[in-house]
Amino acid sequence: MRFVKGHGTENDFVIVPDPDGSLDLTPSLVAALCDRRAGIGADGVLRVVRSKALGRDDLGAEWFMDYRNADGSIAEMCGNGVRVFARYLVDAGLAAPGDLAVGTRAGVRPVSLGATGDVTVDMGAPEVLGKGRAVVSGRSYAGLRISMGNPHLACAIDEPVAGLDLTHAPGFNAAAFPEGVNVELFRPLGDGRVEMRVHERGSGETRSCGTGTVATAVAAAHAEGRTTGTWEIAVPGGVLTVILDGTTSFLRGPAVLVAEGELRPDWLAAR
Amino acid sequence: MRFVKGHGTENDFVIVPDPDGSLDLTPSLVAALCDRRAGIGADGVLRVVRSKALGRDDLGAEWFMDYRNADGSIAEMCGNGVRVFARYLVDAGLAAPGDLAVGTRAGVRPVSLGATGDVTVDMGAPEVLGKGRAVVSGRSYAGLRISMGNPHLACAIDEPVAGLDLTHAPGFNAAAFPEGVNVELFRPLGDGRVEMRVHERGSGETRSCGTGTVATAVAAAHAEGRTTGTWEIAVPGGVLTVILDGTTSFLRGPAVLVAEGELRPDWLAAR
Repeated sequence: MRFVKGHGTENDFVIVPDPDGSLDLTPSLVAALCDRRAGIGADGVLRVVRSKALGRDDLGAEWFMDYRNADGSIAEMCGNGVRVFARYLVDAGLAAPGDLAVGTRAGVRPVSLGATGDVTVDMGAPEVLGKGRAVVSGRSYAGLRISMGNPHLACAIDEPVAGLDLTHAPGFNAAAFPEGVNVELFRPLGDGRVEMRVHERGSGETRSCGTGTVATAVAAAHAEGRTTGTWEIAVPGGVLTVILDGTTSFLRGPAVLVAEGELRPDWLAAR
Repeated sequence: MRFVKGHGTENDFVIVPDPDGSLDLTPSLVAALCDRRAGIGADGVLRVVRSKALGRDDLGAEWFMDYRNADGSIAEMCGNGVRVFARYLVDAGLAAPGDLAVGTRAGVRPVSLGATGDVTVDMGAPEVLGKGRAVVSGRSYAGLRISMGNPHLACAIDEPVAGLDLTHAPGFNAAAFPEGVNVELFRPLGDGRVEMRVHERGSGETRSCGTGTVATAVAAAHAEGRTTGTWEIAVPGGVLTVILDGTTSFLRGPAVLVAEGELRPDWLAAR
């Protein structure tokens, strides 16, 4: 069983090529692969499978990103994951550089990339839901509630984000977020540049969050009375660019393949 | 540049074969390899090099374990690392199963292993230094100060170790441990079985610690007025066996090779 390890702004993945959909990728095997000490280690697994092999010829996308969380559960989409997925496809010769469509459980995502360099994904239309508040380390911050398919609360702050303590889950109005919320705290730096940290529901603070980066750009634009523009968002794991065109949102940034290899048959047999 | 990822009771390593000592393994490359999100991820790197290539024909050991910590610094020895190192040598056909000697910066370590299964390493003679105390989460525990080359304080407790909070570094008498100390809290379970958790200086709580496991066996024996015996120590990352013969100590346990592969040339070039 072959794999590639890669990351997008330090959101990291074990990529498992399975063009014909023949692998039995059980939740326990996914969890074992993602175990950072007893396995390879990653935030999730990206199974690379032809849509046809899943009986999804209807998608209009040759390749499907079967994304699994580190605990083995199924996830719909991952903005950093789909960029790493597309980089793998081009690198492995499974797709040509340029524009391509990636099937996901949240629908088809248009992606564009060159032979090397950054990868851009259409993240869909952000939905601004209204105002909200988050409590972080005893302080209350005003923010904007935004849906990117998943719920976000993006709060502008005045101080450097490096000084924040995101050890504990932020407090929020449970009536406004019945399914929990991802909280972004961001500081505008001028000229469309923003620094941001994020607390993801269920995961705690992470090095990067694709949908959270887009939500932050939407909130930063909203604070200036705008709905469009290009935003450069510095997260702990790197720098991402968000483009808002008034209709949809694009997330652009690095997608790095670190290593490729093969799992040991005896390790696999013991799973 | 090829690598193998492996672990011993969830102390994990990137093994880098370099028989002729030709690799330029800089501290920054080691740190990049051990980065759990932007690299492969591990507690340390084991460079596999012939003693001869280092000008150390005098050692009487064909192979030398050049161990590096995750931050790129040099370390003398690692009880779990040397077991994984030996398993790699046999697996790769670089050494025959049976008894072999591994060169380390702390001297030559005798190791014995079969074609598969557990690996046993001679960890040297423990040195009992006297009594001591550690403060963990506001509670003071009596323990035994032991040197395994590095300093340990092993404290017997009455309650299950699962309930301990080892988030913060334990307090100790700095005059007794001028270079800091690794603190083990262990509960004897009868019949030579012990459960243990460890807080390593500089690293915080870890899943396993080879020298700490031996120190725990020494303290458990001492509490029974003994200096010999076979001890089965359950740590968070698995189970290790310690054999005390009155002269030296042996650490026995699993050494697992998870995967093998190759770093991407473009990733390496960007280090």
